[in-house]
Amino acid sequence: MKQASVSGLEGVVAAETKIGLVDGEIGQLVYRGHYARRLAVSRSFEETAYLLWYGALPGKEQLTAFKARLAKHRKLTPELRRLMDAIPEETPPMSAAMSVVAALQGSEGMTAWPPSAEQAERLTAVLPVIVAYRHHLQNGTEYPEQAAETDHVAHYLHLLFGRPAWAPHVRAMNAYMVLAMEHGLNASTFAARVVASTGSDIHSAVGAAIGAMKGPLHGGAPSGVIKLLEEIGSKDNAEPYMRSLLERGERLMGFGHRIYKTSDPRAEALREVTAGLAKDDPWLDLAQHAEREAIRLLEEYKPGRKLFTNVEFYAAAVMRAVRMPPVLFTPTFTAARVVGWTAHVLEQSQHNRIFRPQSVYIGPAPSGD
Amino acid sequence: MKQASVSGLEGVVAAETKIGLVDGEIGQLVYRGHYARRLAVSRSFEETAYLLWYGALPGKEQLTAFKARLAKHRKLTPELRRLMDAIPEETPPMSAAMSVVAALQGSEGMTAWPPSAEQAERLTAVLPVIVAYRHHLQNGTEYPEQAAETDHVAHYLHLLFGRPAWAPHVRAMNAYMVLAMEHGLNASTFAARVVASTGSDIHSAVGAAIGAMKGPLHGGAPSGVIKLLEEIGSKDNAEPYMRSLLERGERLMGFGHRIYKTSDPRAEALREVTAGLAKDDPWLDLAQHAEREAIRLLEEYKPGRKLFTNVEFYAAAVMRAVRMPPVLFTPTFTAARVVGWTAHVLEQSQHNRIFRPQSVYIGPAPSGD
Repeated sequence: MKQASVSGLEGVVAAETKIGLVDGEIGQLVYRGHYARRLAVSRSFEETAYLLWYGALPGKEQLTAFKARLAKHRKLTPELRRLMDAIPEETPPMSAAMSVVAALQGSEGMTAWPPSAEQAERLTAVLPVIVAYRHHLQNGTEYPEQAAETDHVAHYLHLLFGRPAWAPHVRAMNAYMVLAMEHGLNASTFAARVVASTGSDIHSAVGAAIGAMKGPLHGGAPSGVIKLLEEIGSKDNAEPYMRSLLERGERLMGFGHRIYKTSDPRAEALREVTAGLAKDDPWLDLAQHAEREAIRLLEEYKPGRKLFTNVEFYAAAVMRAVRMPPVLFTPTFTAARVVGWTAHVLEQSQHNRIFRPQSVYIGPAPSGD
Repeated sequence: MKQASVSGLEGVVAAETKIGLVDGEIGQLVYRGHYARRLAVSRSFEETAYLLWYGALPGKEQLTAFKARLAKHRKLTPELRRLMDAIPEETPPMSAAMSVVAALQGSEGMTAWPPSAEQAERLTAVLPVIVAYRHHLQNGTEYPEQAAETDHVAHYLHLLFGRPAWAPHVRAMNAYMVLAMEHGLNASTFAARVVASTGSDIHSAVGAAIGAMKGPLHGGAPSGVIKLLEEIGSKDNAEPYMRSLLERGERLMGFGHRIYKTSDPRAEALREVTAGLAKDDPWLDLAQHAEREAIRLLEEYKPGRKLFTNVEFYAAAVMRAVRMPPVLFTPTFTAARVVGWTAHVLEQSQHNRIFRPQSVYIGPAPSGD
């Protein structure tokens, strides 16, 4: 008898992990024993990346040394520039990033196996450089060689926008990137582990993950939410506009999640961070207001459905507040998730077994000899 | 209670497929209703690729048109040359191939979704060009722009060696490449399906598969067998040398397989093809002799263990006979398996659901708020 195929491997446990816990029933996201929503509001990108790779938050000296290493690897080398200049203009940003990451395997004498935390640091440090350089290349704008920020997120924003970012925006983006780092065996992280399980190198694994993240069913940008907020336009219009959508049977983008059956802890953390900034940023003010109205309306129109705000809603609010161009939403998600990918690759390499599931053949029976 | 993790997803059915059937119990490998071992000895690379993508062997006119399309896409374009020249010299061949495949996404106006058979044809046509150009670049030898062969495999060998290949070698390599095209949900094919399941493009999926194939646990070269045959050296020495290995408790490379519990149909097909060539090629003659001796010795030393010849044994014989440099074993495997990868990507896109398995958290319990 043929075994049934498990569509999308839903419910199948494919790995044990010490990196992260996603509990959709009670709305928990934990990174190595720490609540992600707490890390997002109280810790930097660097501290959280360190935690995911090394298993504990860094001490003061460890953090200083770690930040110095990241800064060193954050350079636009001539090698990197030549690679990116050779990639065809029409190649999308995610494909360009995948290409560059793969091509750097073997650079600076890095070995292929086993993957190391040093490689994870290098890849994480250089991804913002890749994203930003390629973005300026495609726009004909100037890549800011002199961005001198030492903090990872502030440096990334400077690279993208060509000037130092406003501190509250850095804080909001730091929270977003901390919350986007890790989320269990999502398709990109799973792809990275499958590739690493063959004994392949960390560049191949991260390249594969970037390829998966590119898919709109996974790394899909929060563009729908931004469209919603732009159509609302002003606080006065939030209630009547969303009511008209619900009356027509349309859904509100940014509410409901496949995994979280209760409040998404990432949305909660971003609400907390952006609440403090709303008075200074009309866009965040509108988002906060629209969320309250949406929750009220969803209870009225879909009682009992428990449609809570998801991370996309506040991700959209943050992206729009910092004026992130939509084409950079998924690359920015990538620049954060690379921390989780590399942590999983390191873990996979420590207790490795090659992934080799079965398929069921439903084609024509073999004929002839 | 926590669910147990299924190590390597062994035995888990992750997809239904009409493309191929691997039955290790009875030693069957079927491509869309046709025995692979029959295809290998009677059909060309092109005919088999057409079968895997389009579901039926091509008619005469279909085949002519198909071969013309492959020839058209087989070009070393200035774009391709520029890309490969920009990849650092120390980048390994598989990483370079992954990089180039990713960078070509969007080229010539190809859309990202849904993947098309035309894209599969283009990728398959261009991979030998990528492998060969990069190989000559790293060796400082000349890339033969004038290779005029119209058959895919003959053209590939000409690109690699800079001159037309001997017809029996083309025939053996054709059989090898047909047999290497497809083998169910091996790690690279599975990686391609995971990436495609996100709605990502076929270049990203194939790039990820190349990254997986690079791992020695998957695309591992048949170097061990070649070493064995080289150490044997002459027919006279086959029996005493292998006996001495078995006396010392060492294993014979090229015998036994995780999936096939009986004769590997790929080894059988390659034995058949190479048997006719053994009189013209001392290396193949030695391989045929060594295999017979090995089977006899394994029955003597490990009775009941059913250690049959696996595909690696004859893959090694073919590779060594055509003088394939070891660094090109895995890229050549890739140039064949790309047909299966792309067939699976097309199939995945037709009944898609994103792959999203679960993980079990075994890290520290969350503390604090």
